[in-house]
Amino acid sequence: MNLDYIKPNEWSIIEEGFNADHVEASESIFSIGNGAMGQRANFEEHYSGKTFQGSYIAGVYYPDKTRVGWWKNGYPEYFAKVLNAPSWIGIDVNINGEQLDLLSCAKVENFKRELNMKEGWLSRSFKATLQNGNEVLITTKRFLSLDIDEVGAIEYSIKPLNENAQLVITPYIDAGITNEDSNWDDQFWNISNLTVENNQAFIEAQTMKTDFHTCTFMQSECLVEGQNVGLQPQTVKTDNKISFIYKISINKEETFTINKYGGYTVDRNHDKNGLVAAAKSALDNSVSTGFSALLDAQKQAWAKIWEMADITIDGDIKAQQGIRFNIFHLNQTYLGTDAKLNIGPKGFTGEKYGGSTYWDTEAYCIPFYMATKDQSVARNLLTYRYKHLDKAIENAEKLGFTNGAALYPMVTMNGEECHNEWEITFEEIHRNGAIAFAIFNYHRYTGDYSYIQEMGLEVLIGIARFWHQRATFSTDKDKYVILGVTGPNEYENNINNNWYTNYIAKWCIDYALENIDKIEAEFATDYTRIMNKVRLSKSEVAEWKKVADNMFFPYSEKHNVYLQQDGFLDKELITVADLDQTQRPINQHWSWDRILRSPYIKQADTLQGFYFFEDHFTTKELERHFDFYEPFTVHESSLSPCVHSIQAAKLDRMEQAYTFYLRTSRLDLDDYNHEVHEGLHITSMAGTWMSIVEGFGGMRVVNGKLSFEPKIPGQWEGYSFKVNFRHQILKVNIGKDKTDFELEGDKELDILVNSLPLTIKPNSLVTV
Amino acid sequence: MNLDYIKPNEWSIIEEGFNADHVEASESIFSIGNGAMGQRANFEEHYSGKTFQGSYIAGVYYPDKTRVGWWKNGYPEYFAKVLNAPSWIGIDVNINGEQLDLLSCAKVENFKRELNMKEGWLSRSFKATLQNGNEVLITTKRFLSLDIDEVGAIEYSIKPLNENAQLVITPYIDAGITNEDSNWDDQFWNISNLTVENNQAFIEAQTMKTDFHTCTFMQSECLVEGQNVGLQPQTVKTDNKISFIYKISINKEETFTINKYGGYTVDRNHDKNGLVAAAKSALDNSVSTGFSALLDAQKQAWAKIWEMADITIDGDIKAQQGIRFNIFHLNQTYLGTDAKLNIGPKGFTGEKYGGSTYWDTEAYCIPFYMATKDQSVARNLLTYRYKHLDKAIENAEKLGFTNGAALYPMVTMNGEECHNEWEITFEEIHRNGAIAFAIFNYHRYTGDYSYIQEMGLEVLIGIARFWHQRATFSTDKDKYVILGVTGPNEYENNINNNWYTNYIAKWCIDYALENIDKIEAEFATDYTRIMNKVRLSKSEVAEWKKVADNMFFPYSEKHNVYLQQDGFLDKELITVADLDQTQRPINQHWSWDRILRSPYIKQADTLQGFYFFEDHFTTKELERHFDFYEPFTVHESSLSPCVHSIQAAKLDRMEQAYTFYLRTSRLDLDDYNHEVHEGLHITSMAGTWMSIVEGFGGMRVVNGKLSFEPKIPGQWEGYSFKVNFRHQILKVNIGKDKTDFELEGDKELDILVNSLPLTIKPNSLVTV
Repeated sequence: MNLDYIKPNEWSIIEEGFNADHVEASESIFSIGNGAMGQRANFEEHYSGKTFQGSYIAGVYYPDKTRVGWWKNGYPEYFAKVLNAPSWIGIDVNINGEQLDLLSCAKVENFKRELNMKEGWLSRSFKATLQNGNEVLITTKRFLSLDIDEVGAIEYSIKPLNENAQLVITPYIDAGITNEDSNWDDQFWNISNLTVENNQAFIEAQTMKTDFHTCTFMQSECLVEGQNVGLQPQTVKTDNKISFIYKISINKEETFTINKYGGYTVDRNHDKNGLVAAAKSALDNSVSTGFSALLDAQKQAWAKIWEMADITIDGDIKAQQGIRFNIFHLNQTYLGTDAKLNIGPKGFTGEKYGGSTYWDTEAYCIPFYMATKDQSVARNLLTYRYKHLDKAIENAEKLGFTNGAALYPMVTMNGEECHNEWEITFEEIHRNGAIAFAIFNYHRYTGDYSYIQEMGLEVLIGIARFWHQRATFSTDKDKYVILGVTGPNEYENNINNNWYTNYIAKWCIDYALENIDKIEAEFATDYTRIMNKVRLSKSEVAEWKKVADNMFFPYSEKHNVYLQQDGFLDKELITVADLDQTQRPINQHWSWDRILRSPYIKQADTLQGFYFFEDHFTTKELERHFDFYEPFTVHESSLSPCVHSIQAAKLDRMEQAYTFYLRTSRLDLDDYNHEVHEGLHITSMAGTWMSIVEGFGGMRVVNGKLSFEPKIPGQWEGYSFKVNFRHQILKVNIGKDKTDFELEGDKELDILVNSLPLTIKPNSLVTV
Repeated sequence: MNLDYIKPNEWSIIEEGFNADHVEASESIFSIGNGAMGQRANFEEHYSGKTFQGSYIAGVYYPDKTRVGWWKNGYPEYFAKVLNAPSWIGIDVNINGEQLDLLSCAKVENFKRELNMKEGWLSRSFKATLQNGNEVLITTKRFLSLDIDEVGAIEYSIKPLNENAQLVITPYIDAGITNEDSNWDDQFWNISNLTVENNQAFIEAQTMKTDFHTCTFMQSECLVEGQNVGLQPQTVKTDNKISFIYKISINKEETFTINKYGGYTVDRNHDKNGLVAAAKSALDNSVSTGFSALLDAQKQAWAKIWEMADITIDGDIKAQQGIRFNIFHLNQTYLGTDAKLNIGPKGFTGEKYGGSTYWDTEAYCIPFYMATKDQSVARNLLTYRYKHLDKAIENAEKLGFTNGAALYPMVTMNGEECHNEWEITFEEIHRNGAIAFAIFNYHRYTGDYSYIQEMGLEVLIGIARFWHQRATFSTDKDKYVILGVTGPNEYENNINNNWYTNYIAKWCIDYALENIDKIEAEFATDYTRIMNKVRLSKSEVAEWKKVADNMFFPYSEKHNVYLQQDGFLDKELITVADLDQTQRPINQHWSWDRILRSPYIKQADTLQGFYFFEDHFTTKELERHFDFYEPFTVHESSLSPCVHSIQAAKLDRMEQAYTFYLRTSRLDLDDYNHEVHEGLHITSMAGTWMSIVEGFGGMRVVNGKLSFEPKIPGQWEGYSFKVNFRHQILKVNIGKDKTDFELEGDKELDILVNSLPLTIKPNSLVTV
């Protein structure tokens, strides 16, 4: 059973009524972030129930010692892990001697939590009856500023309803933090200094081993009925925590408010000796601006994001809420301004998966960021991989590859591999293909060749070298084969000739060759620089070509489809529809061997290839493969429904496309996979965006032009999206019977609609 | 490079000269055991160098919490582990204020260590020059009594050579013990009582969780020039250790000797409240018998073992030493008297592998114990599996099997699975076949059907049910296939249609069916009892038969061989001879994916099937398969060379057979696999025995008769062995040109020699 407690609303995520069983799920769903930091929606006041506390700072990770049962040569000794950071949100509340704690209250009424996506803030309100009989109304609002991204602000109000109240309010910062998923119960933080000055508190802490320097800070001010009462706190310091204790008497029906400002300064942005000074300046700036002006700026900043990124859906409020939830969290996670950062699968909402960068970035996220931001954002994501090329070459060397062959890690923070299941780490090598594909995709969409010329070609050469060495020649088949891999469908391990892997391997070599030729012909200086560096000979290139030209692809004449891998047809081909539904999800019910020998597919695998290389195949071919594989697909990866939604739409199966769309867009809101308490599936959210724009909207780039094949699910009245295409913004508004195109830009844009050319003039509306 | 420091000797293992780099290897090689307990050859006196301390009690294990990186459904939460036990051998020696420690001596001369296999004792002697200038001669002798198997004895002598000496001698027992391989640094022992009474010391300790109760004990007596001097010790007790401190002045050239008796009583043999009393009685008995009489009894007990189990080899001292080393350690590990015990791959010589029972027992050890002991020993080993049948059914249920299907664990102490690599635990299911094969083999050799009738049929039915459910029907092949397995060659994982697994699966079903019919026809009461228990219907049996009759076996027409698995021919078929030798052993040089996609075979796989089911195939077929697979075999499993030696001998390739023989027999003595410091390869030692008796001797059982095809390696003058066949003992003495048979028994024995019948009369010699 999926969860179903989130109230449908166009712009907000709303929970009503307090349910302790939903706390951890809501902590994930209501998470807030500003690209530089993020936090789960933990309560400010003490909570004694089940909770997963989490605050995270972008780019601050920890090399945890690997824990595996049985070591294999090539495993990383350490791997980088998303790190739980010191917390600055805490405000303990004591009312007439009793600590406010939602779990131990005599009664909680009118509990409401709202994540306002339009304006970028999180609020809570409730009436609590304490064990001592005191009734209080609590209202809180919290946000992480997009403008001053080192700072967040909290407005926390308490109104005694039935008695005057002696309040003790204790805002604090706490660096006594561990990770839920640490391997060896090691401490991750060294705390070096706790400082208090002018009612500002600072904790300087460094990560062990990685030596990231951080300063966590706070400052508060107290108001009664909206007037600052200049209350002075008593300060308490322990080894890892600073608390300010404010005491005040409040009359019944009066409102006490504490405004708390807090956040982090980090040595990615400041000199490590200047972190406290930077924190002071951030605090001074925030406090003098004040909560309400900061909040106004927040609304404006989010309005700017929405102006470009919003998708509207008419007539289907759950679908509308879903897509905005996805777009909102993507923007909370990554804004694209720093090439050292990337998009973790759980963003700032949890620890699981222990690294920030997966092939998800290249396969799913780049299209979203290309179309909803300036193209420099996608370029930053590509640059990130270029900067890790040396590490990818080292990684391949650990596995016995030579001569500059590069294998990008499955999971990474800093370029090093962060994962150690042999069937994934060593064998899920198709990830290398997605990295090359993203380069192609970026160039196809933006038309910007400079990345390839400056950086990308080296990446492509490293990847091509890997595939050339990884393929082996089968005398039996008189073809090159790729043995022992795990494809995108991780429910198959150590298989031979995974069609997707073989296909993308061949494509990578061909694409590298094409770009070597192009750069030789058009950019002689770059060519010389790169060739001096990579020392690529004509004979090596000829060997690559032999592999690409003679790659083996498993095929079934009987079914007229490419086979996901050698031997796929030996399986008992019982479709998911005929599978005992009590056994689902199979990854929670079956032992691994049973999953592996079953025909069930976790996520698009052969179909992922048809998605990437759509124009290599006819629609008839797509249809045959979709009809063959989708019935065996259990979609137990968050990355699965979006691709299927796009393909179903292309095949005019709008009901199916819509079902997949709902599944991808409300995966976390409705907790389809029973794991939302661990955090959100951030990277698959970009897939949701694709399933509208590429799926229903049918957007592609064809010969440098945008192309659309607009369709609309029967449940919708209309929908609209915008794309930033080569520095012009095209708004697309699709109704039941017509589509409007509107261009913000300064020159005409030639597009294709249902394969027919159409020219859109700047700042005019065209209806088709 | 193999090690080469053990002196060739017919009956002893000898090390000369002290080399700290050899200490851990020698601790393994010189290990002693008596079936009930065992210990690595750690020094009695303190040693500050690298050492791996190990004392083990048969049947005393610990359920350590599993540690894996990435959990999979079906993994055991806990697994039983060979447990390091309290130590009783320690004797600290202080000479004129300086502690004797071989690593810190100024000089060590004439160091000699000897493991006398004929008589079953371990000795050391050396002259040490201490930092303080004192020269002393140390001689020690130690053994674990076969007669009183709870007790061991040490004679430790010190002779000051250049000065009178003030000696402080401190024998102790120590329960402050951990495992080298513990997963979570947990303590495994609860120490309940430390008692000293009449110069006897007792530590009662229980294992946590498993609650095995043990008492470790000691008593010592001091002699000068062989005369008991009645020295009284001072007692020191800590939380987990009892020490007796003896102080005495010794003149230069006088010999001081301490005789120490120690050992364990355990609640497998005594009431748990009577362990101290049992220990007292064992000590009283030993001390009153005295070291020298105990040693005499030890010699006699070993003489009795050798009388039956010895193999002599003339003209090749290294081969002779090798085979005796193997036979000696097998008998130190397991004497077959207790059906609760089994044969750990490392015996009492190390911790690695964490369990006592592997398919090694059925595949390799049973033939040795059948032929060199009474048949009740082999029957005990079969009974052990019968007692674990319910757990094997539970284990299969965890993996989704139903209806009494049994999957025996890969590794176990108590019937529960002890291993958690998915490719082994869930997929190396051929182990089930070896358990059925051992039942067949026992019946074939002994003629005793009672085990099958009383217990074995239930085991066979559980196993047949497993194979029936585990096979799946491939409509593509119109055959039953077995997908996703690991065969005996663990350098392939998750493969389809491993020929060995498919073959033994079919055989298991056929053999179960044959025995169901036989028991129905001949043992009606047993049949009814068993059928009432297992509820086997005719229709289920018919389903089994369909699987067995339609099993798929991968075959290459081109090479005219069965293929080890689907797709084997896609590999780059470069033989081991053409492999870069710096890359060997590949398991220490290559990452796992590279090993998996290579053609290299860890141990006999297809050929293991040809070994088990030799009479299903012609010699020509064997030859073709041997010629195809052996060149790809790296023999990186200790279980590999023996099978190849037997098959090479059968194919008249005596040089190759001899090379394999040396490798199996001196695997640990010469440390072929660079891991002897972790312990010895006990179970493969039974394979060494097979390579002489079945390989060179060509012994088989054909239609209930022993059959021989005697051959002899060119390096040997002659060799002899004895086998206990159906309660008569046949001695076989094979020379360059003739073979002598001599029967100890009371009735004629019909045998076959080179396929010709021969009748041996009791107590007479027949030469062929």
